[in-house]
Amino acid sequence: MIGLREIEEAAARIAPYIIHTPVVRLPGLDKALGCEVYAKAECLQLTGAFKIRGALNRMLQLSEEELARGVVAASSGNHGKALSLSARMLGSRALIVIPDTAPDIKVNAIKALGAEVVRSSPVERFTVAERIAKERGALIVHPFNDADVMAGQGTLGLEIARDMPDLDKVIVPVSGGGLIGGVSTAVKSLCPGIKVIGAEPAKLPRYTASLAEGEPVTVEQQPTMADALLANRPGDLCFPQVRKYVDGMAAVEDEDLLRGAKLLLLEGHLLAEFSSAIGIGAVLSGKIKVSPKEKVCFVISGGSVDLPQLDRLKSVNI
Amino acid sequence: MIGLREIEEAAARIAPYIIHTPVVRLPGLDKALGCEVYAKAECLQLTGAFKIRGALNRMLQLSEEELARGVVAASSGNHGKALSLSARMLGSRALIVIPDTAPDIKVNAIKALGAEVVRSSPVERFTVAERIAKERGALIVHPFNDADVMAGQGTLGLEIARDMPDLDKVIVPVSGGGLIGGVSTAVKSLCPGIKVIGAEPAKLPRYTASLAEGEPVTVEQQPTMADALLANRPGDLCFPQVRKYVDGMAAVEDEDLLRGAKLLLLEGHLLAEFSSAIGIGAVLSGKIKVSPKEKVCFVISGGSVDLPQLDRLKSVNI
Repeated sequence: MIGLREIEEAAARIAPYIIHTPVVRLPGLDKALGCEVYAKAECLQLTGAFKIRGALNRMLQLSEEELARGVVAASSGNHGKALSLSARMLGSRALIVIPDTAPDIKVNAIKALGAEVVRSSPVERFTVAERIAKERGALIVHPFNDADVMAGQGTLGLEIARDMPDLDKVIVPVSGGGLIGGVSTAVKSLCPGIKVIGAEPAKLPRYTASLAEGEPVTVEQQPTMADALLANRPGDLCFPQVRKYVDGMAAVEDEDLLRGAKLLLLEGHLLAEFSSAIGIGAVLSGKIKVSPKEKVCFVISGGSVDLPQLDRLKSVNI
Repeated sequence: MIGLREIEEAAARIAPYIIHTPVVRLPGLDKALGCEVYAKAECLQLTGAFKIRGALNRMLQLSEEELARGVVAASSGNHGKALSLSARMLGSRALIVIPDTAPDIKVNAIKALGAEVVRSSPVERFTVAERIAKERGALIVHPFNDADVMAGQGTLGLEIARDMPDLDKVIVPVSGGGLIGGVSTAVKSLCPGIKVIGAEPAKLPRYTASLAEGEPVTVEQQPTMADALLANRPGDLCFPQVRKYVDGMAAVEDEDLLRGAKLLLLEGHLLAEFSSAIGIGAVLSGKIKVSPKEKVCFVISGGSVDLPQLDRLKSVNI
């Protein structure tokens, strides 16, 4: 288990490198959501997502020798970008294994951050990453099931609790649980009165299922529009944090997260990747209940989306 | 002429009603623009644009009787929305004249804010507004050529100068001059070392032409993608403020403001109406020069744009 202390240490460690993103008031969403709406605009973070917090907290604890050997990950998304930028900031190097199927735009984004890229078939990518890491003596940084990564993500919760201690609810997108594990630990430690609620894809309800069982269980892997929330099982290190600190978990349909992303974009003027609007979708669909006097903060965890993807928003009604 | 005092009075007057919007750091734009990029995210303001500042500052100085008679404007855009919301907040009423040609979405947005809507032909709309105002004894609030409106818009500059006094440049979208007139007065009064630069459409270079002449001149009305910056002549009250306080003025091509909006959306994760990205377009095109060490703040004045319009961004390259 991690606690407030690990998260405060992480905050001190990464502060010189990251952006303290604002909690913004979004009155244009109040009517549709039925509460006083705030957003932790983490889409304004370096590389456009929260992942840099955990990656830096992990890498800042490596020795000179470990930094020289570098880090490896199999992720063409926000975790890959975060590791690439962290490595560049710290004079280390990152190697990112990207599936052959990933679009060039993702490959180029990773390369632009200075990382080395190796392509592989989607099924082999984790094996390839492990082989290369072993050959080089490089470190594989897990995207969520790592205490230092989770403590780093928790700094986002620290900022929310310190900037807006009078919130009623914080709603967090959930995949493996690194973000909500850290955020809930920070928020509940500082402000026990704030409810912390998770939102995960209905197609991959790994936390809803695991919380019901009382231990991590694996759910069937299925495609979802929430393409940054694809873990089919809670992280073993994340699950106890979530079980202890999180007040509720909603499983959200794909259409509702698109509705959430559309509302956030057109009325809130923030661009979120669809996964990051899942909490808004949870309230829109009634899966998370709120009331007009409540101050509710949605963690907008990332903004990696391109224009062709936005066409999907045309098909849904807010 | 207005001065710092009128703007400070406006700020005190409107503070209970508006959002103090954040100046956000946008590192994802640094490379493309060649400076340290900040944005005054006024797209996060009530009704999604700065216009509420001026409208409230004007209406908060009306008598009970004047409030009872209400206000009138011929604007289907941000000014119309701002007056509608101001009237609702203050227990007054707004009547907005909207051209027959305006899309339903605009009409519904105004109606949703509680205003009465009258449709007219585009050429007759100002005459219709004047006739109705006369009949009702209601006040026509000008969108920019009004000292109280300009002082209200100036509060945005006050916030920038107080939140980020170490900026090097502030870049402001320009139409009739209400926004830049107020903002430049506030910024230069508090922080004379900050350069304030305007960006206007190359198709409607009313300030470039007027500053060259030394007095307000009318330029030929032409269509432009900058559809919130359509004034073809500076406001008589705005021009002297701009002449005194503004350090430079750039005339920006339509394609460059689209490039600016695309960069802001995909790398900055903020949705701006195309007009509001004109300052970013000015730097992208080299019309405004910046350097890597400079802290440059772009005023993102509004975010009223819909999904079909965003398709236009697909055709330009950042």
